[in-house]
Amino acid sequence: MKIKVINPNTTWTMTEKIGAAARAVAAPETEIVAVSPTMGPASIEGFYDEAFAAVGVIDEVRKGEAEGCDGYVIACFGDPGLAAAREIASGPVVGIAESAMHAASLIGTGFSIVSMLERGRASMEHLVHAYGMHGRCRSIRMTDIPVLDLEEEGSDAQALVIAACRAAIEEDHADCVLLGCGGMSDLMKKVTAEIGAPAIDGVSAGVKLVEALVGLGLGTSKRHGYARPLPKEYVGAFSDYALK
Amino acid sequence: MKIKVINPNTTWTMTEKIGAAARAVAAPETEIVAVSPTMGPASIEGFYDEAFAAVGVIDEVRKGEAEGCDGYVIACFGDPGLAAAREIASGPVVGIAESAMHAASLIGTGFSIVSMLERGRASMEHLVHAYGMHGRCRSIRMTDIPVLDLEEEGSDAQALVIAACRAAIEEDHADCVLLGCGGMSDLMKKVTAEIGAPAIDGVSAGVKLVEALVGLGLGTSKRHGYARPLPKEYVGAFSDYALK
Amino acid sequence: MKIKVINPNTTWTMTEKIGAAARAVAAPETEIVAVSPTMGPASIEGFYDEAFAAVGVIDEVRKGEAEGCDGYVIACFGDPGLAAAREIASGPVVGIAESAMHAASLIGTGFSIVSMLERGRASMEHLVHAYGMHGRCRSIRMTDIPVLDLEEEGSDAQALVIAACRAAIEEDHADCVLLGCGGMSDLMKKVTAEIGAPAIDGVSAGVKLVEALVGLGLGTSKRHGYARPLPKEYVGAFSDYALK
Amino acid sequence: MKIKVINPNTTWTMTEKIGAAARAVAAPETEIVAVSPTMGPASIEGFYDEAFAAVGVIDEVRKGEAEGCDGYVIACFGDPGLAAAREIASGPVVGIAESAMHAASLIGTGFSIVSMLERGRASMEHLVHAYGMHGRCRSIRMTDIPVLDLEEEGSDAQALVIAACRAAIEEDHADCVLLGCGGMSDLMKKVTAEIGAPAIDGVSAGVKLVEALVGLGLGTSKRHGYARPLPKEYVGAFSDYALK
Amino acid sequence: MKIKVINPNTTWTMTEKIGAAARAVAAPETEIVAVSPTMGPASIEGFYDEAFAAVGVIDEVRKGEAEGCDGYVIACFGDPGLAAAREIASGPVVGIAESAMHAASLIGTGFSIVSMLERGRASMEHLVHAYGMHGRCRSIRMTDIPVLDLEEEGSDAQALVIAACRAAIEEDHADCVLLGCGGMSDLMKKVTAEIGAPAIDGVSAGVKLVEALVGLGLGTSKRHGYARPLPKEYVGAFSDYALK
Amino acid sequence: MKIKVINPNTTWTMTEKIGAAARAVAAPETEIVAVSPTMGPASIEGFYDEAFAAVGVIDEVRKGEAEGCDGYVIACFGDPGLAAAREIASGPVVGIAESAMHAASLIGTGFSIVSMLERGRASMEHLVHAYGMHGRCRSIRMTDIPVLDLEEEGSDAQALVIAACRAAIEEDHADCVLLGCGGMSDLMKKVTAEIGAPAIDGVSAGVKLVEALVGLGLGTSKRHGYARPLPKEYVGAFSDYALK
Repeated sequence: MKIKVINPNTTWTMTEKIGAAARAVAAPETEIVAVSPTMGPASIEGFYDEAFAAVGVIDEVRKGEAEGCDGYVIACFGDPGLAAAREIASGPVVGIAESAMHAASLIGTGFSIVSMLERGRASMEHLVHAYGMHGRCRSIRMTDIPVLDLEEEGSDAQALVIAACRAAIEEDHADCVLLGCGGMSDLMKKVTAEIGAPAIDGVSAGVKLVEALVGLGLGTSKRHGYARPLPKEYVGAFSDYALK
Repeated sequence: MKIKVINPNTTWTMTEKIGAAARAVAAPETEIVAVSPTMGPASIEGFYDEAFAAVGVIDEVRKGEAEGCDGYVIACFGDPGLAAAREIASGPVVGIAESAMHAASLIGTGFSIVSMLERGRASMEHLVHAYGMHGRCRSIRMTDIPVLDLEEEGSDAQALVIAACRAAIEEDHADCVLLGCGGMSDLMKKVTAEIGAPAIDGVSAGVKLVEALVGLGLGTSKRHGYARPLPKEYVGAFSDYALK
Repeated sequence: MKIKVINPNTTWTMTEKIGAAARAVAAPETEIVAVSPTMGPASIEGFYDEAFAAVGVIDEVRKGEAEGCDGYVIACFGDPGLAAAREIASGPVVGIAESAMHAASLIGTGFSIVSMLERGRASMEHLVHAYGMHGRCRSIRMTDIPVLDLEEEGSDAQALVIAACRAAIEEDHADCVLLGCGGMSDLMKKVTAEIGAPAIDGVSAGVKLVEALVGLGLGTSKRHGYARPLPKEYVGAFSDYALK
Repeated sequence: MKIKVINPNTTWTMTEKIGAAARAVAAPETEIVAVSPTMGPASIEGFYDEAFAAVGVIDEVRKGEAEGCDGYVIACFGDPGLAAAREIASGPVVGIAESAMHAASLIGTGFSIVSMLERGRASMEHLVHAYGMHGRCRSIRMTDIPVLDLEEEGSDAQALVIAACRAAIEEDHADCVLLGCGGMSDLMKKVTAEIGAPAIDGVSAGVKLVEALVGLGLGTSKRHGYARPLPKEYVGAFSDYALK
Repeated sequence: MKIKVINPNTTWTMTEKIGAAARAVAAPETEIVAVSPTMGPASIEGFYDEAFAAVGVIDEVRKGEAEGCDGYVIACFGDPGLAAAREIASGPVVGIAESAMHAASLIGTGFSIVSMLERGRASMEHLVHAYGMHGRCRSIRMTDIPVLDLEEEGSDAQALVIAACRAAIEEDHADCVLLGCGGMSDLMKKVTAEIGAPAIDGVSAGVKLVEALVGLGLGTSKRHGYARPLPKEYVGAFSDYALK
Repeated sequence: MKIKVINPNTTWTMTEKIGAAARAVAAPETEIVAVSPTMGPASIEGFYDEAFAAVGVIDEVRKGEAEGCDGYVIACFGDPGLAAAREIASGPVVGIAESAMHAASLIGTGFSIVSMLERGRASMEHLVHAYGMHGRCRSIRMTDIPVLDLEEEGSDAQALVIAACRAAIEEDHADCVLLGCGGMSDLMKKVTAEIGAPAIDGVSAGVKLVEALVGLGLGTSKRHGYARPLPKEYVGAFSDYALK
């Protein structure tokens, strides 16, 4: 089974970290291909960044279909491009926010999300509602750290994340915490150990959910909502994206 | 006041129709600039099309800021790129789905949406929930007509739309109907007359809502969720979109 | 266009303030008629006051129909009499709570309401739910000031309102605040300047929304829910309110 | 225990029927006082009628407090004036829509409402949501019969009601039906027998719920939301309603 | 009328307390039979305990049907076995969580629940949602006291409960509080007096609701969801529970 | 990895079918142990049956912990005993209703459930809401076939199930269907082929989800809601279930 894990931003150190997290949990027979788009933002910290990242994600899924990929993980906690990617994928496509929320709902009674810049809160809330998880989400704690600080040696980003996770368990009554950024994908074990409750990395969760779906013989449904895009003209810079 | 009305697809006959609808309701002192992106799909009939259209919308809003636009209307009933556009706009940005739903909720107790291809239902449902309108939405009726049939002389698209609108009022207990496609923006008066209840075109509604917001001195809030995008590197085909 | 702005309480200083706020944003060709009912409570601070104010509102709308009014704004943040007024109005009728919430939802990701006596919280919560805005409402902050203190020279009411608005932005993650009382209609600019985020006055918002709806050719739908009241006998003190 | 059952309309034959239904279920030691307001509409078929009826209800509760009433039932399926009445009552006040829904939720998994004119649907839906019952309400069936037809000898109103109740059980999967009008209060036994499932009359349910609450020593809470109205000036036709 | 009040745990001192609370509010002609199951946990502090308690409750309802009971109250704030009990009962069955929530929603605008161990929060939240009460529930305060401490002379459990109830009214804006454990059924009057707002004991409320339903001639609906269990084979330790 | 698949009813032919479905999708290194409880109902067709089945499930999980099981699947579409089982399991526990719903939400925009007796509808609806899936559930179609008919050679149960699945796709706009009974676990491939859209068997989905969670190092969270049951006395027939 070949799973493409797409870091929707273009920061390669993060892509490598995400790839490592994916490989650490993948089944022996699963091949993980970790990529970044060839175009787009260095980090995703808002709806503007997400819109461009979405096209990058789609581009990688399109190539992935030609490369024989069996499924895809979109490794940004805003799940950019998810619905569009599903239209062109035969196999399953999952986002890491969605994957972490689904995993959490199977092992606890309520989760908290710990993430980065305060400005991202609205995007998280949108996903929580869109996925039907508002009854399960006990809090969203934004640490107000820029995403790329997670890549800096010696920053206090990890310590702040761990403190927020602990507060979520102890003050907000969460059973488990979701690590709300692809850049935290190396922290699952460490945070779990620190807080004495499960910390869920969506990259890891996404890989295992795609393995599960492919193992069930399930791809994206091609009836109705995620049917293959219709053939039509695309013009200008996007003319190559027209489907036949 | 200068309002840019962006038809997110690249079919110019539709853009002209949308521009005409906008001008028909705009205040005398409002200048309407109706455009299509220079890139993207000829029609929007799914999430894939929407993702590319979103970038086209953003591009037009970026240019609009330089051109001194006071506000924007995104003239596709999936409201593509809305949140991203708000991050870069100083003035208000509205989508036509959102505009039609808000207008409907001020003049009736419940609305129905009449739109095109069945595959678009999930996108409509998503917006209805995201905008908090599920308590007001009495039905979604998809006529299963391709979008561009609305541009064809002699197609039976109009007749099918009117029949669906009438059924929404009479069978689904709706008070008014939303014309669920930018390509229906010329039908507001005709459908209203036919069904004896308000038919709302989101393009028209969007123009008047932007006028109203600008008249209130309200632009998009720059605190938290729609704050201006952070400066960062963008690479590849999107490198020009990096903000300083 | 003639818009009647109805202050549902009978305190004339507040009516004048509301009228001034309405005129400050109205289009040049809009005539604002600001009135109070000839009967009812001096301020509205609970459901009992609202019930009487509702009849006063209806009375003014009834007269307004004879006077050729094109639309109505109900200038109390509990929107008393709104549904009933819609049944007898040909044009649109909006409440200021509803108007402020709709405006806020077009320019930000989440709002807070700042209002007066703690006892009014349940009424606000009811409206937030009834209008489908619970996903957008980040907090309701009651200052516990009596409504008429806003009319007192030298009271600290304004300072308390501004402090609550600032806390809503900074502690509750709101993007903008709604001024939750008709008596705050003079504070929109001042609070906006103080908190660095939009403060929305529902009176101003209501006027612009009515202008927008009338400009669209939209009145209240007369199918189903807001159909004209049926002719029937009314007895006793209300016998004049029977419709033919 | 003295319970005042208030028919909010002024049609005395209906008041007598409602009083009889109340007495049929009341405990031997309960005194039922069935009244109509001295002012207001002959039937309640919309929001306009409801607004006037609300004042009539309040008037009767005000008098009831002086008469030593222990609790109140508002016998119209729109529950007009309920929140206001609670502010001035020491004992409990219940509406018949609310009472029927609460009773139904204790004996079945889902109910349907069968009521009169189609135009009343929006009001029913509003109450279903406001009371948190949307997860329990399987359908609302409006028979489109005017309310006062229930008072006519020889009308086919009863037959139409029974047919709608049967359809609710058999086609909409309801466990029980709510008789959605005070004028159906004599039909509880008959409909139950006809459809083989519980038909709930809200008047009867309301009387027993008030008895239950009074028996528990519970009146309306006077903290926060339903606190006694504040003393203030009332002017004009409502000047007598000012509280000291 | 004979009402069986079932304490689902096997601690007899609590059963006696519950029986006393039931008798204190029951009508003179109501016979209260207070029992504990002959099997199961000494206290109910989690889902595991609840699952066994549910069978004990069912066993008592089965016996109750043979004993001529007219209705049942399940006296644990998790309402264990409620739906199953309804299938085998002819008369009404209510849980104390459900009863307290329904009573609260008739006398106030919003309630808080005060209960025992923090681990029980998820169960409370589940019930609040299942009963449609999330719009009414202002907070859940867990005191983190073991259930059986309420039975201990000289424990500070009562003081902690009262402090939490007061905080719910004053900090969480609740109008009334629900005593979230059968073991608090003796505290209704005392807490009410202490906090100056209604404290509702679900045992008392449940008895009065059953009396009300029986007085209405309403039993559990036997159509659809709570129809009598089908005859079938039961094996092993549960073979006696097969119904014919 | 050892996964125990628990058929909560005691019909061994169904247990074998369920075990076969589980083994068909399990990873090569996964050992499937398919069991039925030693006590309880031959089929589960209502809340009464579920309550007994829940104890049987718990009993098997308890034994499973001693047997070194890594996770559990509860193979009845009502997910009986799920929360209780989670309290005593170290590893993950999933129900088949929950598993099927989660899988469906990753591959389509909306699902329908096709199940057996009409009386089971309320239980399905309850789960849909409890799992936050009401925004995704397009319909529930009950075929009104007894569960054990699925075990009968020559019954028309399969044909009725397939017809209902097809109608869900074509009339209710579902993208995929959930096979709403453990006894349908052999139909996943056949129905998928017949209807041209994914049919999801919860047993298969549950096995893969447990594999995924175990592969992530995730067991049931032991903080708060699913913490291990407290040691306490259990009496009577359940005395062996006391935990130390």
